[in-house]
Amino acid sequence: MADRRDWSLAPAAEIAAGVSSGAVSAREVATAALARIERIDPAVNSFTAVLADRALARAEALDAGRARGDAPGPLQGVPFAVKNLFDVAGMPTRAGSRINRDRAPATRDAALVRRMEEAGAVLVGALNMGEFAYDFTGENIHDGDTHNPHDLTRMSGGSSGGSGGAVAAGLVSVALASDTNGSIRVPSAFCGCFGLKPTYGRTSRAGSFPFVGSLDHLGPMARSVADLALAYDALQGPDPDDPACARRPAEPAMPDLDRGIGGLRIAVAGGYFATAGEPEAFAAVERVADALGAPGRIEIPEAARARAAAYLISAAEGAALHLDRLRHRAGDFDPAVRDRLIAGAMLPAPFVERAQRFRRWYRAAVLDLFRDVDVILAPATPVRAPRGGQTTFVLGGVELPVRPNIGIYTQPISFIGLPVVAVPVWPDDGLPLGVQVIAAPWREDLALRVARHLEREGVARAPVARL
Amino acid sequence: MADRRDWSLAPAAEIAAGVSSGAVSAREVATAALARIERIDPAVNSFTAVLADRALARAEALDAGRARGDAPGPLQGVPFAVKNLFDVAGMPTRAGSRINRDRAPATRDAALVRRMEEAGAVLVGALNMGEFAYDFTGENIHDGDTHNPHDLTRMSGGSSGGSGGAVAAGLVSVALASDTNGSIRVPSAFCGCFGLKPTYGRTSRAGSFPFVGSLDHLGPMARSVADLALAYDALQGPDPDDPACARRPAEPAMPDLDRGIGGLRIAVAGGYFATAGEPEAFAAVERVADALGAPGRIEIPEAARARAAAYLISAAEGAALHLDRLRHRAGDFDPAVRDRLIAGAMLPAPFVERAQRFRRWYRAAVLDLFRDVDVILAPATPVRAPRGGQTTFVLGGVELPVRPNIGIYTQPISFIGLPVVAVPVWPDDGLPLGVQVIAAPWREDLALRVARHLEREGVARAPVARL
Repeated sequence: MADRRDWSLAPAAEIAAGVSSGAVSAREVATAALARIERIDPAVNSFTAVLADRALARAEALDAGRARGDAPGPLQGVPFAVKNLFDVAGMPTRAGSRINRDRAPATRDAALVRRMEEAGAVLVGALNMGEFAYDFTGENIHDGDTHNPHDLTRMSGGSSGGSGGAVAAGLVSVALASDTNGSIRVPSAFCGCFGLKPTYGRTSRAGSFPFVGSLDHLGPMARSVADLALAYDALQGPDPDDPACARRPAEPAMPDLDRGIGGLRIAVAGGYFATAGEPEAFAAVERVADALGAPGRIEIPEAARARAAAYLISAAEGAALHLDRLRHRAGDFDPAVRDRLIAGAMLPAPFVERAQRFRRWYRAAVLDLFRDVDVILAPATPVRAPRGGQTTFVLGGVELPVRPNIGIYTQPISFIGLPVVAVPVWPDDGLPLGVQVIAAPWREDLALRVARHLEREGVARAPVARL
Repeated sequence: MADRRDWSLAPAAEIAAGVSSGAVSAREVATAALARIERIDPAVNSFTAVLADRALARAEALDAGRARGDAPGPLQGVPFAVKNLFDVAGMPTRAGSRINRDRAPATRDAALVRRMEEAGAVLVGALNMGEFAYDFTGENIHDGDTHNPHDLTRMSGGSSGGSGGAVAAGLVSVALASDTNGSIRVPSAFCGCFGLKPTYGRTSRAGSFPFVGSLDHLGPMARSVADLALAYDALQGPDPDDPACARRPAEPAMPDLDRGIGGLRIAVAGGYFATAGEPEAFAAVERVADALGAPGRIEIPEAARARAAAYLISAAEGAALHLDRLRHRAGDFDPAVRDRLIAGAMLPAPFVERAQRFRRWYRAAVLDLFRDVDVILAPATPVRAPRGGQTTFVLGGVELPVRPNIGIYTQPISFIGLPVVAVPVWPDDGLPLGVQVIAAPWREDLALRVARHLEREGVARAPVARL
């Protein structure tokens, strides 16, 4: 007999336990989630497709399986949704664009969608995103902007704005997203939820629409570290269908979240990562550092050049990917995205070659730092969520365009594929900020343990927005 | 007691045997080689530095070692010379340029120079080359052109023109050279000697001046297959100082040369490799195919695109390497090389990105062919050595610039790092042509066995030029 609570707002772990025990049916959970999406999402605009039929059929199959005695999965009956660059069988994979709507429908779900469902989860829809993921705002001229659930006049952040919006609005407990230069960490920060960008190569990109092959990562967003880790554990692992994801990680994937932070050497990134942002961005990092007893500073060398190099490589590889579309469908792009891609198409090749050469140097230099430290803290963004439509802001006394500069602190980290958990920190006066908890390659476990400690101490939290 | 023969013209294997047995001293061999260089090279212009003092001191040390009973090396007392992009301690590594003469002298010999001397060889000098190896002609405005020893009015081929000239003129039995897009195979073809471009990653490039990191190979040139293999065996093997040369080859390096060709599946490359060249280029391939009993044809897919892609990547990576020199020393380049590099500096990055993507496809497609065939034959060049200074020729009915089009058949092969032995074939009417004997990665042994068979059958031969 099901109880009367609103299961659509429950954490993934509780839903899975409830469905597994029979306290609630998967169908009831799915129905509640679909109803909440229908009621709340018009204000947020995080979904571009709600897959009610698929979700209910899937939930009924899970319930029938339970009746037959099938063993439940760790995400049994948990509704989730995916950024619309993941293939979903039967739908064109639009990747935030108008152009891609003319593609043939996907014939198969993306690898990570399959992994989530293999763990018992229930796909309820596809989520809004910046066009072709070349975005930090969550704005989209084709599907409309995703609004920040905590203040609908503010940006959700991007490019995974729909993922941040859906999680923060309590429409799903877990959303999948992609992060090339910050697209998981930025909406996690702006929307006040937890986001994990895994180590480059940890999660399979098979069946997802790419942006920059050498920088694209896929990962989960959630409202608790336990849910984040639960989803991550279902998602991670080698896949021969993604050449970057073929090698097996050296460290265990699923950490003992509650093991605490004893023995971990934690430092705050100084220099570049302590410059140009607004004071509250650094105050959030300090709160986290205080809670971790981490007074030390560490200098990530040449971070400004790393950000510039990530920028050049993204523009050039992105343009290479879209060259034919630029030639034949130029009028169907968001003009702002088109201009970025055209600029990328004209970048001189030796600049990019030098950026790649620098990248090898920088990767080695940063890996060296992890001899002396286990976890590095840095702001996720230099500001809290800007107003929707805002085009400039002032950083370090200089007026700059908003969109490209939201990512100044995320780009130098993803550039070399380090795993990061973005944790949401709430100042007394309103909207949240994100702090990046950064670990060495393959050490997601350490970043997750630190995030969990912060959550338990009440320093990081991801409440459902009041809508 | 030494005999009266001219040891400077002897094959490396005979010199090593003679010096090891005491039939001749290393000093006598070195003296003879230096005298021959002094007498012959003014007409050929293959040397840019003759290292008489170093060579004699080294030879005397070898002789003293023999007197002490030291075990001789496989190249004991063999004089050799190196393209002037190899570091030689005490000299600036000029790489064919004027600009590099202002560099500090090298403090250490290049890795392959050390390996040759560890095998007992004696370095006698540095060899002329096209500026910064961006060349197929063997012409050099700073050091003068290297002339073809078999017809001094003809090009030696490049960029390793000095290496081809010195070997064909009988000044050394072995020369070291580099091949990015054909720079060993082209001068081997024009000068009528054997050249080995090993598998990408087989020989260390530590201590050599680069051109295109992802395409640069180093290897030997010689007048017999036995000498080529002897040098190759000394040169090959992993070196942590060259990141591309860190993995150990799967196949044994030193083949049993005289094992014959029984059981080898050999085919002639059709399509692109049977088009545009002059008839004698294809006649040379047919003579080789007949001698090998290889009537079959095989199609290397998309070879024209492979050549174009190699061209783009070379121009862009080369320009990236020289960007600072272009900015600060533009007037000191060969103007023709400078123009190529400036063009490369302006190449749009997405073109190069697409070329790299195509390269991965092409590599897989060509590797597939080696399931059905062990060795592929193709012309080395579309023509015999053009006249010195010649700027255009007619290929396939179209008048084209000479320099870039000499490499149309070599570029698609080095593009994916396949090992090749270039074998010299002599038509009845004069100057030689080269045939590429191409094997799968790490199978230099097969290409060498085929080359040796052709040499034994009298189809391929590398006589000393009459000068």
